[in-house]
Amino acid sequence: MKFTPEHEAFRESVRKFVDKECAPYVDDWEREGIFPAHEIFKKAGALGILGVEYDPEYGGMGGDHLFAMIASEELGRMGCGGVPMAFGVQMMMATPSLHRYGSHELKQKYLAPAIAGEMVTSIAVTEPDAGSDVAALKTRAVRDGDDWVINGSKTFITSGTQSDWLCLLARTSDEGGYRGMSQIIVERDTPGLDVAKKLDKYGMRSSDTALLTFDDVRVPVSNTIGEVGRGFQQQMQQFVVERMFASYGKLNSMQGALDRTRDYLKDRVVNGKPLIANQYIAFKLSELSAQLELVRTHAYVMAEKFMNGEDTTRDATISKLQGARLAREIGDWCMQFHGGMGYMEDFWVARYVRDTRLGSIGGGSDETMLQVLSRIDGFTP
Amino acid sequence: MKFTPEHEAFRESVRKFVDKECAPYVDDWEREGIFPAHEIFKKAGALGILGVEYDPEYGGMGGDHLFAMIASEELGRMGCGGVPMAFGVQMMMATPSLHRYGSHELKQKYLAPAIAGEMVTSIAVTEPDAGSDVAALKTRAVRDGDDWVINGSKTFITSGTQSDWLCLLARTSDEGGYRGMSQIIVERDTPGLDVAKKLDKYGMRSSDTALLTFDDVRVPVSNTIGEVGRGFQQQMQQFVVERMFASYGKLNSMQGALDRTRDYLKDRVVNGKPLIANQYIAFKLSELSAQLELVRTHAYVMAEKFMNGEDTTRDATISKLQGARLAREIGDWCMQFHGGMGYMEDFWVARYVRDTRLGSIGGGSDETMLQVLSRIDGFTP
Amino acid sequence: MKFTPEHEAFRESVRKFVDKECAPYVDDWEREGIFPAHEIFKKAGALGILGVEYDPEYGGMGGDHLFAMIASEELGRMGCGGVPMAFGVQMMMATPSLHRYGSHELKQKYLAPAIAGEMVTSIAVTEPDAGSDVAALKTRAVRDGDDWVINGSKTFITSGTQSDWLCLLARTSDEGGYRGMSQIIVERDTPGLDVAKKLDKYGMRSSDTALLTFDDVRVPVSNTIGEVGRGFQQQMQQFVVERMFASYGKLNSMQGALDRTRDYLKDRVVNGKPLIANQYIAFKLSELSAQLELVRTHAYVMAEKFMNGEDTTRDATISKLQGARLAREIGDWCMQFHGGMGYMEDFWVARYVRDTRLGSIGGGSDETMLQVLSRIDGFTP
Amino acid sequence: MKFTPEHEAFRESVRKFVDKECAPYVDDWEREGIFPAHEIFKKAGALGILGVEYDPEYGGMGGDHLFAMIASEELGRMGCGGVPMAFGVQMMMATPSLHRYGSHELKQKYLAPAIAGEMVTSIAVTEPDAGSDVAALKTRAVRDGDDWVINGSKTFITSGTQSDWLCLLARTSDEGGYRGMSQIIVERDTPGLDVAKKLDKYGMRSSDTALLTFDDVRVPVSNTIGEVGRGFQQQMQQFVVERMFASYGKLNSMQGALDRTRDYLKDRVVNGKPLIANQYIAFKLSELSAQLELVRTHAYVMAEKFMNGEDTTRDATISKLQGARLAREIGDWCMQFHGGMGYMEDFWVARYVRDTRLGSIGGGSDETMLQVLSRIDGFTP
Repeated sequence: MKFTPEHEAFRESVRKFVDKECAPYVDDWEREGIFPAHEIFKKAGALGILGVEYDPEYGGMGGDHLFAMIASEELGRMGCGGVPMAFGVQMMMATPSLHRYGSHELKQKYLAPAIAGEMVTSIAVTEPDAGSDVAALKTRAVRDGDDWVINGSKTFITSGTQSDWLCLLARTSDEGGYRGMSQIIVERDTPGLDVAKKLDKYGMRSSDTALLTFDDVRVPVSNTIGEVGRGFQQQMQQFVVERMFASYGKLNSMQGALDRTRDYLKDRVVNGKPLIANQYIAFKLSELSAQLELVRTHAYVMAEKFMNGEDTTRDATISKLQGARLAREIGDWCMQFHGGMGYMEDFWVARYVRDTRLGSIGGGSDETMLQVLSRIDGFTP
Repeated sequence: MKFTPEHEAFRESVRKFVDKECAPYVDDWEREGIFPAHEIFKKAGALGILGVEYDPEYGGMGGDHLFAMIASEELGRMGCGGVPMAFGVQMMMATPSLHRYGSHELKQKYLAPAIAGEMVTSIAVTEPDAGSDVAALKTRAVRDGDDWVINGSKTFITSGTQSDWLCLLARTSDEGGYRGMSQIIVERDTPGLDVAKKLDKYGMRSSDTALLTFDDVRVPVSNTIGEVGRGFQQQMQQFVVERMFASYGKLNSMQGALDRTRDYLKDRVVNGKPLIANQYIAFKLSELSAQLELVRTHAYVMAEKFMNGEDTTRDATISKLQGARLAREIGDWCMQFHGGMGYMEDFWVARYVRDTRLGSIGGGSDETMLQVLSRIDGFTP
Repeated sequence: MKFTPEHEAFRESVRKFVDKECAPYVDDWEREGIFPAHEIFKKAGALGILGVEYDPEYGGMGGDHLFAMIASEELGRMGCGGVPMAFGVQMMMATPSLHRYGSHELKQKYLAPAIAGEMVTSIAVTEPDAGSDVAALKTRAVRDGDDWVINGSKTFITSGTQSDWLCLLARTSDEGGYRGMSQIIVERDTPGLDVAKKLDKYGMRSSDTALLTFDDVRVPVSNTIGEVGRGFQQQMQQFVVERMFASYGKLNSMQGALDRTRDYLKDRVVNGKPLIANQYIAFKLSELSAQLELVRTHAYVMAEKFMNGEDTTRDATISKLQGARLAREIGDWCMQFHGGMGYMEDFWVARYVRDTRLGSIGGGSDETMLQVLSRIDGFTP
Repeated sequence: MKFTPEHEAFRESVRKFVDKECAPYVDDWEREGIFPAHEIFKKAGALGILGVEYDPEYGGMGGDHLFAMIASEELGRMGCGGVPMAFGVQMMMATPSLHRYGSHELKQKYLAPAIAGEMVTSIAVTEPDAGSDVAALKTRAVRDGDDWVINGSKTFITSGTQSDWLCLLARTSDEGGYRGMSQIIVERDTPGLDVAKKLDKYGMRSSDTALLTFDDVRVPVSNTIGEVGRGFQQQMQQFVVERMFASYGKLNSMQGALDRTRDYLKDRVVNGKPLIANQYIAFKLSELSAQLELVRTHAYVMAEKFMNGEDTTRDATISKLQGARLAREIGDWCMQFHGGMGYMEDFWVARYVRDTRLGSIGGGSDETMLQVLSRIDGFTP
């Protein structure tokens, strides 16, 4: 990767932000099951982190894709997965469609404050009865004059208890399957929109997650992002960006897990021999290190391809699948080789295991990635 | 397996105990990080559960090994791993040496109340600096008149904050390695013995775990179990029984996890098709089911061999290793196939994943099992 | 397992037969791509090997299932997989239906000489266009007076170039799927039945395999085994017995592969250290050894269940699947740890790798086993 | 990768050479256990294939590393692994040290004809008693006036029955371990140098392999490549280039195996459904395809790094390890999904399985790669 001095300066700036504004509080946030998104995002916004690739007209940095990669890599050093995930939602899940397809008015009203960190945002796609299958969505927006009237429910909504607006995907016509959906911005304090439940998760605890219900929620039709009926297609593009961002963020944390484990095993002397002197352990860690090199190299090349305007749907799918699986495997072996200490809840490795587990479930499960890839590669007719 | 009516009646009795006295409270105990061992063990003791194979002279049932197997299987249905683990310590880790090698006086004083559930017991082997390597133990008991004076520390002590006495393994001579250790009963309220820390664990939360420190703890030499200097060998025998018991307990919980997941996937209809209709899922569950059949059959045969007086060290090692790995694999796939719901902390599968993780770490790690097996099978000189 | 003196005497007898009549010639047979089945089977027949469980009226030993298990175990020591496979076809694939359902006349004419080793037999189920899916069979027997007139083709027929008769599965009605098939004995020299091709296989080279074509082959209807239209069901039972027999035969060869590899690695000293001193190698072999213990124990219990008259369909499926996979894994690691020598064609390990590869393909592929098991266990509706 | 028109023209030229001069004869060569290296190399030499990166002064093309990559990729399409391996030895194993460190006279005499394809070359490192451990070499060259007198033996020598000269690694001093070795060119018809045995291999059959013995073989000291005593270090560099070349060659053949298998499974209809419609199969192939993408991307980036003058030792180690394992896994599943046809010796997949198996054994086994990597990454002290 060819990083310019601007890239390096930005990396430095994000790193300082992470070290000073986030890392010292992560343990508290994990315990509380939420982090103060408005406060933290405002600071991040001031540094330009939340709009690295976005149009300066709305407060973005107008930078290239490497800035996004750098942001993701550095946020990945924070010591938890939850807060970086919320950043990912703000930067790469809830706003890309708005930036690309939204009207000027929408962007002024919703994108600019999101970039500034004054508004916290969520993406609302998954439904309780549909799982990873976007084609099975049932939440419906019916037109009534100049308004959409929305009914249904959305679950696993990151930042869902504190976000200011949602990028909602809903059915806006009676066509089934992938057709007839639209992306609509819904403000969180609109009457009829409620947090039915704050979800208690196995991991990613510093990030709040909600089940939301929509009961005759009324939103202006002008809040539609892009074309009515093109919501699914726009959302699919948004998924690609999100998967890339998620992949970048894992790289540093995987390397960090291997490094910390290696250092521990070197220091830990039992009966006069450091644990790392066990060939079984050394070889297993070497295998994981080799796999990490493959995943990392692929992620970097994907970033370059994206910058060159190439379609990275296949790469993002592969990177999501393989990166998530590898992170889990690394976490599992790091826990194993720490022995009893690895089983302690307040030790870093337990949190790492819990946080990385989501990678194979959220944002499209491993099985969904395999389904997507099998279509692209012609293994599924 | 050939079960007699007595076996079946005992199974029924344990099952009722589990359903009535344990299962309804498990969620509370998990939240509190401890269960009321004295209260629960007293009820279990009244049913004979705590001394199934022990001498009636001390309150035991004098039953055969199948009673132990039944107890472990039924306790495994409780919906958590922590409480059954504490039962395992009471029945199969802290007391077998005492039963086999202890003096009549020691048995009257410590075994009888443990069988009755009036005393809660712990096993104290692992040390902060020694990990799974028993040969590296440093806690030392030095003879002073008719007393041992004990100094050192022990960690990962199950029931360690509430137990009444410990079966301690300590060095009683200057010989290094495996020689010169003894098993000594130490009452918990002896001066100098302190709970340095209650440990917060990734899983097994309903069971309390402690780090204990020994500072000039004075115990009569008559509290030594069996022969002075034979502690390591006696403890090794105790490990075999413990590993068998732990293996039995996993069988029902593994089957239960597969069954619950299958039922969920049958009911969960997405786009008109139940999730189980995915061949990838059905085949993966079938593979796990096949492996479970192998592990279960082997455990049953091991129980029979043990009843026939055969040495089951190798079988217990294999059963511990393979059972623990399979339970983790089953837990992981069950979580995966539940999607977002599987990631919820208050759902059964997250607890199952956390609890079963200990199986590859505690009571001798997988790597320790491989080391033991490689010696038995001649792969390590 | 409880073996009687009769069992032990039989084991001794088979072992001698293998050591004297087979093992010394295996290398030649492998090179030639065929073994002299008539000559070898005649000797085996004289020792009772070919009809251990069959009715003495037709020359069988009338023994219990353990005799079959012993035969399979001992034949597995021969140093190749091909010849034992041909024994398996003769004893457990081509004749069980005939023994169970055939008329007295058919048994006198075809079973007795098969048991005596005077006739070599084949099973003819698989077709070029149907693969492992028995429901897709197309070979058809149309009734014409007292004859069946048979047209079609069968492939992968073990002993197909030298067998005297086939146990053929063919469609005898227009009902599709699993219905309307019959088992028919067809003599190999019947006009219209031809060996279209002798197949050159990756492994199992000492056993000849053929593609056979049927062009208006005329056979008396009285050659039908059991009931017309029940062929599929009868064949399914025959598959169960075959899978059990195949599983027994792998046990000794897997153990032998591990033992030979261990011995080699102990002797092979590089830079003053035997290769076995590598922990990575020792642990890997220990893992395989642990898995073998599970597979072996399960196979023994399956044999006992079968003797007790229990349905072993599920067990046979599991044993076939897991045994075949384990044998391949053992072969692969044994080759790996032998280094360059393992890659030599004339070394035992290359033959072992080639021969065991068939276990996951022939007699129902792994995927077919998973399909069967997923139905039994309720994972496939 | 950025390929110039010169690269593309070269690719076209190699492809034609492969299609016309090699592919039609591969089946014969496989059967015969050798290919006519002198004839084929002469044709390849005329096209510049054998010296793409070498100095034009000796007949090389003077091209960049991408030409080597292209040559390897295209040779990989040949339909066997043996002949490309012999090319690899000629181009990347036996000659790089000579090109880099050899005297002008040596290069005129030995490199120029190797580049022209007039001389066939071998690399002679491995010894019967040393395996992958180069430090354990025993073959010794003792100085006698202006000659080396060589005694010892070398095995697994590719092209060893027909090569004209060897690049030999031998001990030239009494220092043990990695010190005191030298690289020496030995002509094959030197008295005392004999082919003790032509080795019959499991795969790579179109390439001849030999065990060579050295009995007072006398060679001028001026045949030493580079510095006396630096042979080990020079050889290690040669290994890096070889591993890179081997990795490139696998890429096309892995992709080809997946593509052929996919096409077969689409065409193969059983009971009205193509086999590819099995989700289990489609997902497994997708997983392999994802892994291939990682391995391929990494190999391309490695080539770029090498061209930029970066040290690629770590990358070559990772690429060798992961590429070899993946090729075997792909081969194994392709065989599996072809069913009985995959088990036929004359079908492409059996040859692919046999040929790719060497990748984890030859040129440094997987375990050697893990050892190297564990040192580089600090997992082995």
